[in-house]
Amino acid sequence: MLIAPLIERKRDGEALSPAEWQTLIEAYTSGRVPDYQMSALLMAVVFRGMRPDELDALLGAMLASGERLAFGPDVPPRVDKHSTGGVGDKVSLVLAPAVAAAGVAVPMMSGRGLGHTGGTLDKLESIPGFRTALSLAEATSQVERLGCALFGQTEAIAPADRKLYALRDATGTVPAVPLIAASILSKKLAEGLDGLVLDVKRGNGAQLQSLDDAMTLGSTMVRLAEAHGCRTVALVTAMDRPLGVACGNALEVREAVASLRGEGPASLRELVEVLGAEMLLVAGAASERDAARARIAGVLDDGRALETFAAVVEAQGGDPGVLEDLDQLPAAPERTIVTAVRGGTVGTIDTRAIGRVVNRLGGGRATVEDTIDPAVGLVMLVEPGDAVEPGTPLVEVHARSASDGAAVLDALASAIVVGERAEPALPLVSHRISAAGATALA
Amino acid sequence: MLIAPLIERKRDGEALSPAEWQTLIEAYTSGRVPDYQMSALLMAVVFRGMRPDELDALLGAMLASGERLAFGPDVPPRVDKHSTGGVGDKVSLVLAPAVAAAGVAVPMMSGRGLGHTGGTLDKLESIPGFRTALSLAEATSQVERLGCALFGQTEAIAPADRKLYALRDATGTVPAVPLIAASILSKKLAEGLDGLVLDVKRGNGAQLQSLDDAMTLGSTMVRLAEAHGCRTVALVTAMDRPLGVACGNALEVREAVASLRGEGPASLRELVEVLGAEMLLVAGAASERDAARARIAGVLDDGRALETFAAVVEAQGGDPGVLEDLDQLPAAPERTIVTAVRGGTVGTIDTRAIGRVVNRLGGGRATVEDTIDPAVGLVMLVEPGDAVEPGTPLVEVHARSASDGAAVLDALASAIVVGERAEPALPLVSHRISAAGATALA
Repeated sequence: MLIAPLIERKRDGEALSPAEWQTLIEAYTSGRVPDYQMSALLMAVVFRGMRPDELDALLGAMLASGERLAFGPDVPPRVDKHSTGGVGDKVSLVLAPAVAAAGVAVPMMSGRGLGHTGGTLDKLESIPGFRTALSLAEATSQVERLGCALFGQTEAIAPADRKLYALRDATGTVPAVPLIAASILSKKLAEGLDGLVLDVKRGNGAQLQSLDDAMTLGSTMVRLAEAHGCRTVALVTAMDRPLGVACGNALEVREAVASLRGEGPASLRELVEVLGAEMLLVAGAASERDAARARIAGVLDDGRALETFAAVVEAQGGDPGVLEDLDQLPAAPERTIVTAVRGGTVGTIDTRAIGRVVNRLGGGRATVEDTIDPAVGLVMLVEPGDAVEPGTPLVEVHARSASDGAAVLDALASAIVVGERAEPALPLVSHRISAAGATALA
Repeated sequence: MLIAPLIERKRDGEALSPAEWQTLIEAYTSGRVPDYQMSALLMAVVFRGMRPDELDALLGAMLASGERLAFGPDVPPRVDKHSTGGVGDKVSLVLAPAVAAAGVAVPMMSGRGLGHTGGTLDKLESIPGFRTALSLAEATSQVERLGCALFGQTEAIAPADRKLYALRDATGTVPAVPLIAASILSKKLAEGLDGLVLDVKRGNGAQLQSLDDAMTLGSTMVRLAEAHGCRTVALVTAMDRPLGVACGNALEVREAVASLRGEGPASLRELVEVLGAEMLLVAGAASERDAARARIAGVLDDGRALETFAAVVEAQGGDPGVLEDLDQLPAAPERTIVTAVRGGTVGTIDTRAIGRVVNRLGGGRATVEDTIDPAVGLVMLVEPGDAVEPGTPLVEVHARSASDGAAVLDALASAIVVGERAEPALPLVSHRISAAGATALA
């Protein structure tokens, strides 16, 4: 196949045929199409987009490049949740065991921290001994046994995506909705799902900040996943402030365990219930939203979600006793409280800056090779709209050393704006997108 | 230097700084920036363009990547002409010796056939023995001695352009005006010129067919070359029919020699005079256009242009006797006349198709490795607007074999449209662009 004419057609706004996409991705993955042609084509896609039939073929080829989880006929329906990423987003740690405890299997393949956002694998690994590198056979068997596995992408899953993502990262071709959608779904649909719920973040801490972009990405992914036979719903949720109060790996595990005990911040609990209800619905395990939500609330309140999480921790090499005694989690030696300099109302919180502070404290990576410190992070003590006096505590810093803590104080002071009045915060869940269309919820 | 952020800025419509372009091109040429990042950046340039200061820096870095011709203080001013390429365009073979005979030196570095258009080097090499691969030292010394050298780009000239052009060719990033302009000028300005005249073709046989595109490319190149200290004028000329009547390497040499003898087609003669006059003007060797044109006409009519050409042929290894006895040029064994099937007026001539027929006969290359047959080609016997009867000769085919000739008859019949009336042909020279702005001439 001659590649240059394909690039030229995409450049000029024409569509490639599904067969051309399929051949192209096969040839690229096997090394017969060079990176320099693929990166030029991807940049043309950034400007020209992709037609639905092109995107279907791209995703099909990416899925076909690797293996998929295969479950026996007796396994309950499988669902998963994917979030586009945020700060303080520990939802997966609560949601996956809760949904499993409610009777729907969750083979959840997750990622690591990326840019200013955290990653579920990094959070789980702050539990001493927890092993996220399961083989596909281990993950499948654990899901069949416990209803839940929490693991990382293996070499066998969507190698085309791994190669494409590394290229996109180096060539300025990450932010293109069709490429983002195909990349996410090439991993999620390899889990052998019956249903998928997407948590599309918007706001100043999200990858895509505007509502328009979030709606476009959500609609694109719902259509694309449905076209591949997976019932899918997307919710647009708020990332104009951290979710819950803890930001940092072990701190977030603490908060997640509190939520699994029926405690913890209301926003985290609400999002777990809302997403969990959608997961039961897309799995066909519930037919009515309120009843589905009540089932999720039930397993959080009666301890069954926590039990499932403990079983998963144990199965994956961790010490489930940690969940009873959270002081066994890594803890940072230095704690500093940042207080308000003047009185007023907490306005905008620069959520991206909050995420970057966690990274600077050692809680995230600048490069793939960096190791992270699970103990460090922040605990938010205010949220937008709170009234504060001079001296009111705003945020608690957990640092490796006093100097590490002192180094982020200025960044925190400018990230949490205290002024005359607050902008209205975004509703926690504002829109629902399904195959039937998009609905405003708030 | 981190490259991905530069690509992202260009993708988002921002400009890179001149220093960034300089560093980027140096790093790319020396292999420290990979092709896959450069091709993504070039595709972003296709969509976003470049600011004048970016383009100045790009050209500067491309020129700095290689050597330039250096002339002593006693050498007359140097000028050159560049054409964006057409079918039957043998102007250089007449113009370079004519301008040299008129007292201005012409160190003309030319290219080979590209796509449907021919190349000056291929034409010259149909003269038995003619050697176009001069070293820069040979070319310089010949220009100092004879006022003219006709040679090909060496490895030493603008290596950044060679590497970039090969990448653009493979990645759909050729048609971007700033990249075209910088590529052309990185070679032309390496000739150590005082002045440059650009022949920007438009019409159905040109690389850029529309007047708008031709004007944009002409204006961009004039501004860019002037910013690098070279007085430059662009003329927009007609390529809605072949220039002159001969298309094919040896056939075009025949026609060029006729023109050097004061004979040959009027259109070729007119374009040589007009371009030659501009060359004398930009060289500062004439101050008045009509007088400059008369000087060019004079050297064509009194044999001095032909004498200069003969001296160049001899200096570069060819037999100048061929110019006296053109039957020593390669000639094709099979000649076929295509005649009109019905009467009417010659309308549109599909000039690109004419160029492709020459290639199919063996007169051009499909890949860089192909060898060409200098003898084959076409002689046009009509032009748009001519009245024809059934049986009137339209074009003469010079082919290697009867079957080769027969194979192109259908393509020729559809390329030369005979109908009720002709579209008005484009004026041979329609616009002049200088640093002072653009003027319509016709």
